Amino acid sequence: MSYFRENIEKMAGYVPGFQPKTSDVIKLNTNENPYTPSPAVLNVIHNLSGEQLRKYPDTLGGMAREAAAKLNGVSPEYIMCTNGGDELLSIAVRAFCDEHRPLAYPVPTYSLYPVLAEIQNAKAIELPFDAEFNLPSALAKTDAALTIVCNPNAPSGSFTSVDELASLADELKGKSVLLIDEAYIDFAPANCAALVKKFDNVIILRSLSKGYSLAGLRFGYAIAQPKLIEGLLKLKDSYNTDAVAIAVATVALNDQKYFRANVEKVMAERKRLTSELRKLRLAVPDSSSNFVWAKCSRPSAETVYNKLVERNIYVRFWNSPGIKDNLRISIGTPEQNDKLLAALKEILK
Amino acid sequence: MSYFRENIEKMAGYVPGFQPKTSDVIKLNTNENPYTPSPAVLNVIHNLSGEQLRKYPDTLGGMAREAAAKLNGVSPEYIMCTNGGDELLSIAVRAFCDEHRPLAYPVPTYSLYPVLAEIQNAKAIELPFDAEFNLPSALAKTDAALTIVCNPNAPSGSFTSVDELASLADELKGKSVLLIDEAYIDFAPANCAALVKKFDNVIILRSLSKGYSLAGLRFGYAIAQPKLIEGLLKLKDSYNTDAVAIAVATVALNDQKYFRANVEKVMAERKRLTSELRKLRLAVPDSSSNFVWAKCSRPSAETVYNKLVERNIYVRFWNSPGIKDNLRISIGTPEQNDKLLAALKEILK
Repeated sequence: MSYFRENIEKMAGYVPGFQPKTSDVIKLNTNENPYTPSPAVLNVIHNLSGEQLRKYPDTLGGMAREAAAKLNGVSPEYIMCTNGGDELLSIAVRAFCDEHRPLAYPVPTYSLYPVLAEIQNAKAIELPFDAEFNLPSALAKTDAALTIVCNPNAPSGSFTSVDELASLADELKGKSVLLIDEAYIDFAPANCAALVKKFDNVIILRSLSKGYSLAGLRFGYAIAQPKLIEGLLKLKDSYNTDAVAIAVATVALNDQKYFRANVEKVMAERKRLTSELRKLRLAVPDSSSNFVWAKCSRPSAETVYNKLVERNIYVRFWNSPGIKDNLRISIGTPEQNDKLLAALKEILK
Repeated sequence: MSYFRENIEKMAGYVPGFQPKTSDVIKLNTNENPYTPSPAVLNVIHNLSGEQLRKYPDTLGGMAREAAAKLNGVSPEYIMCTNGGDELLSIAVRAFCDEHRPLAYPVPTYSLYPVLAEIQNAKAIELPFDAEFNLPSALAKTDAALTIVCNPNAPSGSFTSVDELASLADELKGKSVLLIDEAYIDFAPANCAALVKKFDNVIILRSLSKGYSLAGLRFGYAIAQPKLIEGLLKLKDSYNTDAVAIAVATVALNDQKYFRANVEKVMAERKRLTSELRKLRLAVPDSSSNFVWAKCSRPSAETVYNKLVERNIYVRFWNSPGIKDNLRISIGTPEQNDKLLAALKEILK
């Protein structure tokens, strides 16, 4: 017998990207930022006191909540701080979905969404993007209680315009919450933050893991109208973001100059890597994120992946229908990208 | 209309203890350790690198998982690291409970348990302790899928023996998981870690917030047989414990000398405070935790609480049936306890 609920017992669980234990590898598999965070971040950490660690942190994220609000032109009541963007996804699925209230999203996308639906014993309605990664029009017509659009999308790197998402929010209004997962928005041409003022059913997800180089720290936040935020807050743990994360997120969000320069460097390398990969005859669509989505034909994506691993280079490969012909490659430093390109030249010749 | 599930819409949410914004108060309301963490902890934090923050942390807690395993004489497969003990409680309720699978616990106890049941739309079976805080025998006879015993219990500070909890685990075997919430165990005469070897239905909860003075950091863990741990892991976020928490928890768990000395100081003050409060004619049972549970008769607990607030001293008061005659007072430093006692002398005279 099992002590677990039946849906938990039979589910497999999410498999995160491989984290090599050694540092002598080129790690382009989990979309980390290749550059370290702002020096202001390390300054804060290196001056932390025992007193800050001894006491419980602010339950709402304190100064970091205010910094996120200011950055997005809203009041703090529009913000909920979370232990990474993943915690917001988990909270939202628990808040809106259950066995009678489905979750909907276009596919292929972040493979955590179906896992969260399984945990909640909710139906997952998966609607395919078209070949150009346009939103499926049926997404506005489901009976889902929560609709998630990852934008820019992972693993495709494609971007849906703010106008299209505004139309979707409008169609879903009164029926479904639209969560726009903007984990990769720092590398995109626009963002949807302004939609929360207009729509009572929109939640924006943000993360400091990518553009702010803070994947190790776990800090994300939601932007939504106060009525949605108040409901979501009921589900979070009292002290979900810790004192270090709050202190660090505050200075990271406030150091927009470093952030901008960091993002520009990644975007310049994205342009170069895309162009060089195309020269190697890989099909690489334009990316609005910090990774590219490269289609391999001969040899197969799996073979290329394995041959890169032999050279201590890790990219992301999923042996799943619809995405098994592609590799998702995080943008590295110029040196890392050069090594990747040199290896690919050998493998593809 | 509401976008939320009905149970979420109608619930109130947990209310954590008040966190004053200023530091000129005597804060004895949330059971923090009055002493700062091990110097080894600050040393680790002050030497953190940008590289550690840039990359995702180990998804299973890495070195901290190993340190927790070693400390408890089990292999790492028996450990799940969590973002504070609260995250383990949330994960356990989601893993085992739903509208057909109740949660059971003796009361009064940690007031988060019924909130977690509400989120999961699960029935909460509340069985009262007797006047001496003995476990209700009916706790072994419910149809709960998960039974939680907080030991030492909050807010009473009472301790149930390992033998009694072993008997309960045995009675529940094959029917219900027994989660023993040992958040306060560092101040108690014994612990239940050994029960996980014998019982496939026991989960032990541990926290670094109290004995290790790390409430600000959020690090807790579960001890249970690998089969239970594997199931629980499916529900946690991929990177639930951050890189700083993992690094810090590792050295904190390994510095048992500092930990022991810190706990001894708190226990010595607990003995003195208990004795002094009794001299003021408050009924104070022996505590096995880092707080005492003082019964007030004249003036009422609420009046005493308010008069302490006027003097910038915060203890915990709940205006709830069964516990509204008591104050829960965290053990402070000797100086803080002296100020509390002086204030109480005035208030109670």
